[in-house]
Amino acid sequence: MPAKAVVGEKVRVTATIFKDGHDPLAARVILTADGEPKPQAEAQMRSIGNDQWEAHVATDRIGLHHIVVQGWSERGGPVDPEDAPDLTSSDPHPLWVDRERALVGAWYELFPRSFGGFAGTAERVPAIAGMGFDVLYLPPIHPIGITARKGPNNTLTAGPGDPGSPWAIGGPEGGHTAIHPDLGTDEDFRALVEATAACGMEIALDYALQCSPDHPWVGEHPEWFHHRPDGTIACAENPPKVYQDIYPLNFWPDKEKDRAAMWDACKGILDHWIERGVRIFRVDNPHTKPVAFWRWVISEVQAENPDIIFLAEAFTRPKVMAKLAEVGFSQSYTYFTWRTQQHGPDGLWAYVEDLAHGPVADYMRPNFWPNTPDILSGPLRHGPPAAFAMRLVLAATMSPSYGVYSGYELYENSPASDTNEEYLNSEKYEIKHRDYDHPGTLAPLMTSLNRIRREHPSLQRLRSIQFHDTTNPSVIAYSKVSDDGDDVVLVVVNLDPYWVQEASIDLWQLDLPDGGTYPVRDVLSGEMFEWSGKKPYVRLDPMYRVAHIFDLGDPTGAASAIDGGGTQATA
Amino acid sequence: MPAKAVVGEKVRVTATIFKDGHDPLAARVILTADGEPKPQAEAQMRSIGNDQWEAHVATDRIGLHHIVVQGWSERGGPVDPEDAPDLTSSDPHPLWVDRERALVGAWYELFPRSFGGFAGTAERVPAIAGMGFDVLYLPPIHPIGITARKGPNNTLTAGPGDPGSPWAIGGPEGGHTAIHPDLGTDEDFRALVEATAACGMEIALDYALQCSPDHPWVGEHPEWFHHRPDGTIACAENPPKVYQDIYPLNFWPDKEKDRAAMWDACKGILDHWIERGVRIFRVDNPHTKPVAFWRWVISEVQAENPDIIFLAEAFTRPKVMAKLAEVGFSQSYTYFTWRTQQHGPDGLWAYVEDLAHGPVADYMRPNFWPNTPDILSGPLRHGPPAAFAMRLVLAATMSPSYGVYSGYELYENSPASDTNEEYLNSEKYEIKHRDYDHPGTLAPLMTSLNRIRREHPSLQRLRSIQFHDTTNPSVIAYSKVSDDGDDVVLVVVNLDPYWVQEASIDLWQLDLPDGGTYPVRDVLSGEMFEWSGKKPYVRLDPMYRVAHIFDLGDPTGAASAIDGGGTQATA
Repeated sequence: MPAKAVVGEKVRVTATIFKDGHDPLAARVILTADGEPKPQAEAQMRSIGNDQWEAHVATDRIGLHHIVVQGWSERGGPVDPEDAPDLTSSDPHPLWVDRERALVGAWYELFPRSFGGFAGTAERVPAIAGMGFDVLYLPPIHPIGITARKGPNNTLTAGPGDPGSPWAIGGPEGGHTAIHPDLGTDEDFRALVEATAACGMEIALDYALQCSPDHPWVGEHPEWFHHRPDGTIACAENPPKVYQDIYPLNFWPDKEKDRAAMWDACKGILDHWIERGVRIFRVDNPHTKPVAFWRWVISEVQAENPDIIFLAEAFTRPKVMAKLAEVGFSQSYTYFTWRTQQHGPDGLWAYVEDLAHGPVADYMRPNFWPNTPDILSGPLRHGPPAAFAMRLVLAATMSPSYGVYSGYELYENSPASDTNEEYLNSEKYEIKHRDYDHPGTLAPLMTSLNRIRREHPSLQRLRSIQFHDTTNPSVIAYSKVSDDGDDVVLVVVNLDPYWVQEASIDLWQLDLPDGGTYPVRDVLSGEMFEWSGKKPYVRLDPMYRVAHIFDLGDPTGAASAIDGGGTQATA
Repeated sequence: MPAKAVVGEKVRVTATIFKDGHDPLAARVILTADGEPKPQAEAQMRSIGNDQWEAHVATDRIGLHHIVVQGWSERGGPVDPEDAPDLTSSDPHPLWVDRERALVGAWYELFPRSFGGFAGTAERVPAIAGMGFDVLYLPPIHPIGITARKGPNNTLTAGPGDPGSPWAIGGPEGGHTAIHPDLGTDEDFRALVEATAACGMEIALDYALQCSPDHPWVGEHPEWFHHRPDGTIACAENPPKVYQDIYPLNFWPDKEKDRAAMWDACKGILDHWIERGVRIFRVDNPHTKPVAFWRWVISEVQAENPDIIFLAEAFTRPKVMAKLAEVGFSQSYTYFTWRTQQHGPDGLWAYVEDLAHGPVADYMRPNFWPNTPDILSGPLRHGPPAAFAMRLVLAATMSPSYGVYSGYELYENSPASDTNEEYLNSEKYEIKHRDYDHPGTLAPLMTSLNRIRREHPSLQRLRSIQFHDTTNPSVIAYSKVSDDGDDVVLVVVNLDPYWVQEASIDLWQLDLPDGGTYPVRDVLSGEMFEWSGKKPYVRLDPMYRVAHIFDLGDPTGAASAIDGGGTQATA
């Protein structure tokens, strides 16, 4: 299975290399774009002990690449590998290289119907871009079924004015390639894509392979659905959830020609929107469809358009999430929403360590969402503003990709019930009008975080994350280093949104000044602090601030902090 | 690469199994001997969470086997897998099955020349068998070179009476298929093999592929050696050691026909001794010869004689040791000799965990040696008798295979120097006459340990080992369970040979009685103890005893201890 990287990303390659006898060895990595004779990159490897060797390579080209490691001996001094009689090459290891947005991006999700359709949404885009977001993700924009339409709060009967769930796709006006008449026309959609691009953002569309009972496919292609013995079609389920308003597709019709036609039709949906300028798809519940389909459709699409990005909304078991990443998804939703502590089964430390350095790290990229239209959980439920700020800082600084669903900045905190993870009066079933200009929203913090993410390349990477012991389980601390080593950021977050928490942070892993004091800048508040030693003390009052983001400059600790002023601010 | 097992060993097979949708799944493991159509074993797998499934299989046949995992869905109830339309089979995974001695054995090493040759050794065998040893390992028994012969204490000049190192193989009398005239004749050797077998033991011979300058091959096959530009041959090295008295072989002569002849000659040595009843070879420094040679020679030999066992004396880097196991060695020497603490870089806990459950556990089997003729280390150097007892208990109970070099039972503790790991007046360079009948030797402890190893199948396995926290770093505790779960043994060892150490042992992982007291028997001393709860207290005075070996019976804790008496001894 291919490992994944983005253009310009320094990819660490390691290999176990040894030979009988005692001759000194040398080794190199060769990175080649698929089908190209000339390497994209080549690097000498260095021995790092235990017969392990490492090197870093990068490429500016997207698409499939191959990594080959070569080793040889150098008994009498340096040898040109082309002449080495014992030159030994590894099998090629595939590396899929995406454009940068597959790894790094701040996502903002909104329901265009709550903004008056595409035209109203286009008016809102400059404000969202102004907060520093990169991707505008729209839930399905297609006609919505009437049959079994859901009413407010997921009730089974809709009134005449109820708009229904956008995921109940398809009606007399059309299916997955049609646009809901209330949102606008094909031209309005193209205009929204353009307006978004003009602000430096791009659109992500929902790819939800299911049909309302009124979807044209239900009548035109009954063979694409599961029929009960009585001829009726069973509704979709994603246990424990039941979707009474949608039919699942049957990805394995009895006849091979029907299967091929149905898969082609599913790919046709992507082609349709790609043709309209969409390059990112957020895929709804991919784990309820066959892995074989995803392997096929992603490779088909990326063979023609290697810049297309797929985000898997796979809130499912770890092995299934990993499998979807393995067969081609560029990114995946995660369990971040439920990881609210530092340690233990709900612990962020072990979970993020696993994502960054565990078996899936080579090919699964996380996208951290503090909330989604489906999920209001943990400290956000009835939570104070500090809870929203805290979870936002964690998402934006832990993962290079993160996203929020609109309303987050307004601290919407009412759950559907004590036992239900959804929102009360969920926007999935009704139109919402919000006052985004209300004073005191989280918009300024979002704007700061997105600015800091752009200014600090360390925050655009996951694999360099390192956690630091703290003396208080409610205070979590982690640092990140940029590919070139010049940018080091330390994030310290109070996980308790109600009480002041204090801690000492053990930074023994970082190359900080040994003696004397040194200045450190908090890039979130702009304040300067004077530290000495490697165990700084922090105090976080959630009424005032939930986190520090310290710029530790280059790995020697304080260079950029000194560049940044060197004077001590009044804290 | 094949995993390894022995006949009758329950092999745990795990697999990640899932399918799109929500149908219940079933799975099985099929174990087949290579080339046989009918399976040796078949077992239903059970789900153990996280999409992992497991089952255990065993076989009574030696040689190559294949493991296949099959999964299928059972929507409407149990389905015969032969009829399952979605039956999915894994690729076959190879499993090499050895006879039991490849995993389990107590080894005893002696220099036959110190016993008056083969005849004198044969007289000593009943006493060694009486101590419960399984394998009698003899250093090379071949003629020894005169040129550059080593004198006492590895000096470079030998006197007329000095016998030289047995590893300097070859003289006018012959090479690797000849017998040193002082040891006896071919008939004497056959008699020793028979005498050993009559006592229930077997002989392991040294396979040391190197030649003294007087070895017949040096003159007959100069193309099998590395020549310097001046025509001389360089001596062997295994840095930092230099072997002035031996030449290394050149396993890659320029001409392919020379290489083939040389490799065939090396295999011929094994064939020669196999023909004389030898089924175990201890291979000297295999890491200084090509991996490709070992892969070839072991597979050639085992294709004809699958019961032949190879022990790698590879005191080298971890990756190289693992590679040798991967290409076919049945067992390997280890770093046990230098692991003397519970935790830290010299820690036994992490090291044994890695051997039992780490990446090499499937195919590398350890053989633990407290000492060898080359290695007197750690607490044994100038150490008291308790140090010898303690290291013996650790070796014999941690690893199913372990061995000692004779003299150990006499507490020989004088190192060659403060900076040299070898023995003073090493038997490698001179003949030793010892008084094995001296009162107070370790022979009774060796006898007890080997008896306990035979009586307790849990001690014949490595992969079930589990360490237990103790309140004292000088007290290490670990338990083992037999394949059938009926035998559970807990070993507690004082790692400090000088001082009394006390500790509580945290046995939360074991299924011990919750309330009240229960009796536990120490099978080393025969004493009964009364325990309550899961944190027993132990006190080990090295003047009196270095370890407890508790029989915890079946996993419910006390059944066999109750069988063993139920009365409380006066401790």
